[in-house]
Amino acid sequence: MAKRVAIVGAGVSGLASIRCCLEGGLEPTCFERSDDLGGLWRFTEHVEEGRASLYKSVVSNSCKEMSCYSDFPFPEDYPNYVPNSQFLEYLRMYANQFNLLKCIQFKTEVCRVTKRPDFTVTGQWEVVTLHEGKQESAIFDAIMVCTGFLTNPHLPLDSFPGINTFEGQYFHSRQYKHPDIFKDKKVLVIGVGNSGTDIAVEASHVAKKVFLSTTGGAWVMSRVSESGLPWDMLFMTRFHNMLRNSLPTPVVTWWMSRKINSWFNHANYGLAPEDRTQMKEPVINDELPGRIITGKVLIKPSIKEVKKNSVIFNYTPKEQPIDIIVFATGYTFAFPFLDETVVKVEDGQASLYKYIFPAHLEKPTLAVIGLIKPLGSMIPTGETQARWAVQVLKGVNKLPPRSVMIEEVNARKENRPSGFGLCYCKALQSDYITYIDELLTDINAKPNLFSMLLTDPRLALAIFFGPCTPYQFRLTGPGKWKGARNAILNQWDRTLKATRTRTVQESPFPSAVLLTLFLVLLVAVFLIFL
Amino acid sequence: MAKRVAIVGAGVSGLASIRCCLEGGLEPTCFERSDDLGGLWRFTEHVEEGRASLYKSVVSNSCKEMSCYSDFPFPEDYPNYVPNSQFLEYLRMYANQFNLLKCIQFKTEVCRVTKRPDFTVTGQWEVVTLHEGKQESAIFDAIMVCTGFLTNPHLPLDSFPGINTFEGQYFHSRQYKHPDIFKDKKVLVIGVGNSGTDIAVEASHVAKKVFLSTTGGAWVMSRVSESGLPWDMLFMTRFHNMLRNSLPTPVVTWWMSRKINSWFNHANYGLAPEDRTQMKEPVINDELPGRIITGKVLIKPSIKEVKKNSVIFNYTPKEQPIDIIVFATGYTFAFPFLDETVVKVEDGQASLYKYIFPAHLEKPTLAVIGLIKPLGSMIPTGETQARWAVQVLKGVNKLPPRSVMIEEVNARKENRPSGFGLCYCKALQSDYITYIDELLTDINAKPNLFSMLLTDPRLALAIFFGPCTPYQFRLTGPGKWKGARNAILNQWDRTLKATRTRTVQESPFPSAVLLTLFLVLLVAVFLIFL
Repeated sequence: MAKRVAIVGAGVSGLASIRCCLEGGLEPTCFERSDDLGGLWRFTEHVEEGRASLYKSVVSNSCKEMSCYSDFPFPEDYPNYVPNSQFLEYLRMYANQFNLLKCIQFKTEVCRVTKRPDFTVTGQWEVVTLHEGKQESAIFDAIMVCTGFLTNPHLPLDSFPGINTFEGQYFHSRQYKHPDIFKDKKVLVIGVGNSGTDIAVEASHVAKKVFLSTTGGAWVMSRVSESGLPWDMLFMTRFHNMLRNSLPTPVVTWWMSRKINSWFNHANYGLAPEDRTQMKEPVINDELPGRIITGKVLIKPSIKEVKKNSVIFNYTPKEQPIDIIVFATGYTFAFPFLDETVVKVEDGQASLYKYIFPAHLEKPTLAVIGLIKPLGSMIPTGETQARWAVQVLKGVNKLPPRSVMIEEVNARKENRPSGFGLCYCKALQSDYITYIDELLTDINAKPNLFSMLLTDPRLALAIFFGPCTPYQFRLTGPGKWKGARNAILNQWDRTLKATRTRTVQESPFPSAVLLTLFLVLLVAVFLIFL
Repeated sequence: MAKRVAIVGAGVSGLASIRCCLEGGLEPTCFERSDDLGGLWRFTEHVEEGRASLYKSVVSNSCKEMSCYSDFPFPEDYPNYVPNSQFLEYLRMYANQFNLLKCIQFKTEVCRVTKRPDFTVTGQWEVVTLHEGKQESAIFDAIMVCTGFLTNPHLPLDSFPGINTFEGQYFHSRQYKHPDIFKDKKVLVIGVGNSGTDIAVEASHVAKKVFLSTTGGAWVMSRVSESGLPWDMLFMTRFHNMLRNSLPTPVVTWWMSRKINSWFNHANYGLAPEDRTQMKEPVINDELPGRIITGKVLIKPSIKEVKKNSVIFNYTPKEQPIDIIVFATGYTFAFPFLDETVVKVEDGQASLYKYIFPAHLEKPTLAVIGLIKPLGSMIPTGETQARWAVQVLKGVNKLPPRSVMIEEVNARKENRPSGFGLCYCKALQSDYITYIDELLTDINAKPNLFSMLLTDPRLALAIFFGPCTPYQFRLTGPGKWKGARNAILNQWDRTLKATRTRTVQESPFPSAVLLTLFLVLLVAVFLIFL
């Protein structure tokens, strides 16, 4: 009999988990608290309890070729970076294509997931759900937790002396939906993550004044990278990854900061990270330097004190009048339906082997999918985790002994810099390609570049030097996709086509003329020396 | 007795003209149609007849060090690119500083400027003005026309077959003030000049869909140039100008397009200019490629036909539903108060010697100031024109014989490409530094770099390799400014200071570590070869 799997949440990782369960012959049931799929990608005008909340203007930070499910490319007419409404459409297409809706129970909250008394033998769980006021309980052979990490706002008010005396408005970025509220106001945004930066930039179009305060600074990158190509298609290649991981950390850090500073010098723009040895997730924003150079956004250091109608920044004596404060101070995560003995969250870390399985459980029948911040796209990461986890749930793959797993988890927590490659010192951050390759290797789905170099050199070169697009993960192994090769070879065509909406006959002159000039010069030199 | 000069218009060129007249001992009277100074830079919520009209978000395309009056730098706390409201403040400061207000008669329209019967002897003019319904007439020894070229919209509706059947809204970009009107609409902007691009980008934040249609394409540059420095401070140097003007045209064009395409490939973004041999004024916009890559703005070719509720673009079969069309099709200019025998406007050209004096007048007592589109800032150009013109009006400088002037004008109209340097094929366009240098040479205000290299090498190098800031024009000659040298030497400090609003202790490691690594490597190589 097929194993029954309960999946919590129907966001991008939940959908991938359903898909992978079906693909692997398991029997998934997905419980979704809200009345629709899409998780964080479904924009609503009002914040919903227990679900991530988007603002209206959110656009994906990963381009469409890098952030699709590995066997389901985005439609050709989608833009390279997909706005949230189209992203949701894409998720709906995915759910329809693979018939996932039939497995989802909407408006169903998971209240409790507990080990069955015979857990050490069966590995089974009891799942208590709430649907339209009615509690139900059911037994499952396995659980896949896909609740994400962007639901519980982190609002460290204690760190802002005087905030209680503030008479203006303040709220967490999670509450933010539209820029209208900033009209003609003096706005302070705290935190230069992706949300903070987006909000400050948007506010700056309508507000009277916008301050963006940061303690640690950040590297800011544009979606529009060298020659206008998508940043992640240039940055996320196996070749670059190899260089990044094999060179000494200071060299890599220096090289990266040089690259990033070529757009704009972060020190001159007040954004330089305080600690440059750590690679924090870069902030993706196309407009910030343009807003800074026109004085529409002012970068400020951390806050010393909040007063009734103003704020004093550190190292600057002048009091700045402020009407609205937005705390873009990030999120924490938690599993309210799980007992601490199952997964314990401490310092923003859960003790999960490969970021997936609790290392100390007697049976590997609970997987957490999508609880990771790869320096890459979430969708293919979550999907690969799900594929890998399904092989474990099916018993095809075995986890290593508990001691090995606990060691891996602890090593990650300690996070000793090796001296080589980038240093991922923040909780949940990890190197995209390296991490995915580990998972793929375990399930025999990692393409073998050496043998491919002989059998299909064109593909091998595209895989090594080209962008590490998710299609690479479907070339072989369980869930192999026939379209993968073509999708890889045509990825640049699709990318360029998206913006080539007006074509101009290329005038052939430059190279021809340059050649002529070169020849004329050559003849001239020749004549002179004759 | 001092010569009486009538100045028409109190915008940037009008103010400079008043200033230069006062400086030169002339007696200026400035007639300003509206009730305030600032001309195009004064934003009003409603379009005013006979005055240029700004939209709310306009920011200067020239940075503050490049676009100030040559002896009056912007305040230190101004951003590098100045929004219109602050620009107006600056103009007010200038007017106060040099006591210009006393010379301006507001709400006074110039109706007619005619030669006096004894013009061939005296060069005098009769000026008829209208103030609060009352006509007045006065005699002036000279006229300075400072009415600009952004007042009369160019709306070539005939080129858009079917526009009469269109049931949506359409208007010229001059009418545009706020993006609110585009909310949830399908918008078509025609023309990729600075206005068209700005409007499309702004609309894209609120509209349902935005098309930006262009026949000829354009080069788009960001204010944020290499390493985040202001584009014009890197681009407008005497060194670069020398290179640009001495190399063969195809080489310069190829080099320029390479530079410009390094931000984003214009062909891939549908923006490539059709004719690359001509240097059109580049469009300055920081956000356009970011809006294109996220699908918020779609670049389209020219329009084939307008229908009731839609538009068909050339080379594309699909009809696109459209609610609003914005014609960002530019401006024409005219001098309604002048007889055609004085200045005749044909094909967007007026027959003006050095863009200033009508070539065929018997007496050089009428100057047009600011009727030029330099690839640089308007303010210092207009100011230098005014300084030069005042020397002519005073009789210190003489114009060449009429035949020479007419020849210059005709040569410019024919516009024969020389084969070297950039090709300025559009009316009124000219090479900023070359043009200003010509004027400065005539009034002995051009700094002599060769002798300066011996007496003040630091300054000479800053002038040659650094940005060609207006302070250079006040180092010597009539109206020499004592602060000029300092202003030049500190221009980069002021620029960087404007955005360095949060400072971080530079970690010293990169160069130190690199040096160490280099030494280690050296030792290693040494040991290997030992």
